Amino acid sequence: MNIDQLETPALIVDLDRMEANIKRFQGYLDQHGIANRPHIKTHKIPAIAQMQLNAGAVGITCQKLGEAEIMAQAGITDIFLPYNMLGESRLERLAQLARRITLSLTADSAVVVQGLGRAARSAGTTLSVLVEFDSGLGRCGVQTPDEAAELAMTIARTEGLRFGGLMSYPTNAQTDSFVQAVRTRLNAAGLTIERMSGGGTQCMWQAHEHPEVTEHRAGMYIFGDRYTLKHGNIAVEECSLNVLTTVVSRPTANRGIMDGGSKTFSSDLLGLEGHGLILEYPDAFFRGMSEEHGNVDFSACARKPEIGERLTLIPNHCCSVVNLFNQLHGVRNGKVELVWPVAARGALQ
Amino acid sequence: MNIDQLETPALIVDLDRMEANIKRFQGYLDQHGIANRPHIKTHKIPAIAQMQLNAGAVGITCQKLGEAEIMAQAGITDIFLPYNMLGESRLERLAQLARRITLSLTADSAVVVQGLGRAARSAGTTLSVLVEFDSGLGRCGVQTPDEAAELAMTIARTEGLRFGGLMSYPTNAQTDSFVQAVRTRLNAAGLTIERMSGGGTQCMWQAHEHPEVTEHRAGMYIFGDRYTLKHGNIAVEECSLNVLTTVVSRPTANRGIMDGGSKTFSSDLLGLEGHGLILEYPDAFFRGMSEEHGNVDFSACARKPEIGERLTLIPNHCCSVVNLFNQLHGVRNGKVELVWPVAARGALQ
Repeated sequence: MNIDQLETPALIVDLDRMEANIKRFQGYLDQHGIANRPHIKTHKIPAIAQMQLNAGAVGITCQKLGEAEIMAQAGITDIFLPYNMLGESRLERLAQLARRITLSLTADSAVVVQGLGRAARSAGTTLSVLVEFDSGLGRCGVQTPDEAAELAMTIARTEGLRFGGLMSYPTNAQTDSFVQAVRTRLNAAGLTIERMSGGGTQCMWQAHEHPEVTEHRAGMYIFGDRYTLKHGNIAVEECSLNVLTTVVSRPTANRGIMDGGSKTFSSDLLGLEGHGLILEYPDAFFRGMSEEHGNVDFSACARKPEIGERLTLIPNHCCSVVNLFNQLHGVRNGKVELVWPVAARGALQ
Repeated sequence: MNIDQLETPALIVDLDRMEANIKRFQGYLDQHGIANRPHIKTHKIPAIAQMQLNAGAVGITCQKLGEAEIMAQAGITDIFLPYNMLGESRLERLAQLARRITLSLTADSAVVVQGLGRAARSAGTTLSVLVEFDSGLGRCGVQTPDEAAELAMTIARTEGLRFGGLMSYPTNAQTDSFVQAVRTRLNAAGLTIERMSGGGTQCMWQAHEHPEVTEHRAGMYIFGDRYTLKHGNIAVEECSLNVLTTVVSRPTANRGIMDGGSKTFSSDLLGLEGHGLILEYPDAFFRGMSEEHGNVDFSACARKPEIGERLTLIPNHCCSVVNLFNQLHGVRNGKVELVWPVAARGALQ
């Protein structure tokens, strides 16, 4: 099937470009001796995770236990879950998964460490737990090297757990000095930081500038989007993910309405103006959305589209867009080669 | 199962409240002799659509053909699709559906009318097509009464189609005068406006102030959310839809992180500040999100939550939130009574 035959809105990935993106970033990290642990929250598709592993990734990163269960079911055996796991039924599921595959986790409080200890003992295994620290994002993570060192020692003392190192998001100017300060505090206790997991697509090409970082977690690098374009991490001709839409209305000389809105593109702005880049009309401004309508101002375009014309867009945020579709079509040279269900979509728990 | 046993993030609907909301709005429209044609884009669940029909709705409204197919599969026989249908394979699906159920549609251009005519003739049926006009939203719809009248006559002349009336969104101060102006123009052609379909939850309790409106399309009234609260269409104690989350981190004295972010709540702001109302902490400010983390400032709260504490939220926009979940749990008196798959989720085409 040709992509022109797909009903819109449709989500397509150019397989040649995605494969090149996977290879390019793996090559960069290999060159600098940094382990690659890609974040699958971006695609939620086991087959793409397997392509990342085949290219040299040491394992994958999942944000939710439900995602990890689906990836494990598909045969993936090394998963990092850098998310505070809480709740007895969730910890039971975690224990079940820990019996089957190699899991590592994070914690930023003693409450989380205690739960992980119970899960590990229930599974009869040892879980590697990294301490999450806040590098300035203001999300999760301990705030100071003292807290990090104290939590590391709590992990090391907890039956069933092993102190696995440190984790933060994103990797930035604070990362190395924080790790060094924690190391100083842990030396006395005889604990070593064997793994420092950094992350972020926006800082992916600077991973080598941080000598303390031993592995990198990035997600969006396989697709690219307007956010990664803006931050200079990818070029337009390297972006592999597109949304195809159809112009369904031309009510005025300059207004065009297409059949994709916030349930297709998400409302994520990520600091950008507008909701997507229309490749056929780069001067158009995708100015508004309702749930199933995209509202585009074509006034800056010399030629304007006709009703029924198909458009190809780079969305603002690839992760959120894939999460809204049931299927991703893999294409090569304009032909649909395969269809992947977005398997871990909605795996929120 | 008690709702406290649901793993978070979880989506729950209080069935007593939802049933009361369905009954209350149906009663209002009945009292004023306005047909109720609820929009199922809000819930995407056939069983809820059936509850709306059982309460007295004349039929349902779907935004996408894929939604309509799923609703028809579940036994619903009267569906309004106020969306420009384009593309040959979509029109073939439309023809198939038109053979099985009563479908009505809209158009705002001759191109759309031509396609609908082909679908109707292929189905061997007559399709009722309403003309969509723009009441000021600046989305789809013809711009002037002259254009509306001309398109109505085009529909009436098209084999397989019948001019079904007018449609607009939302119902507002322009609605009645626009309809009257079109009627004047159609009188000479012997065409009558048998149906004027208005819509919107924000204007739901003013539907009776528009004498030209014969039916009303609303979606969010069954659930309510921060948007409908802000517009005074529902009270907090009538809101039936909640997201349950767990506090997974308390990195600082005032910051709390919960296990729901933009993949749980969507990024829809709809002019609101913050991303949700936390019922246990109404003074908290849900200030930021990443995909799976919600970032809450509890500084205005006398008591602050502990790690592991569960929270109950009213989201900004119920339609977008339901669309992100695989399942909706129906609860009564805190007990889970049933689980509905969000069947038409991702039915974008």
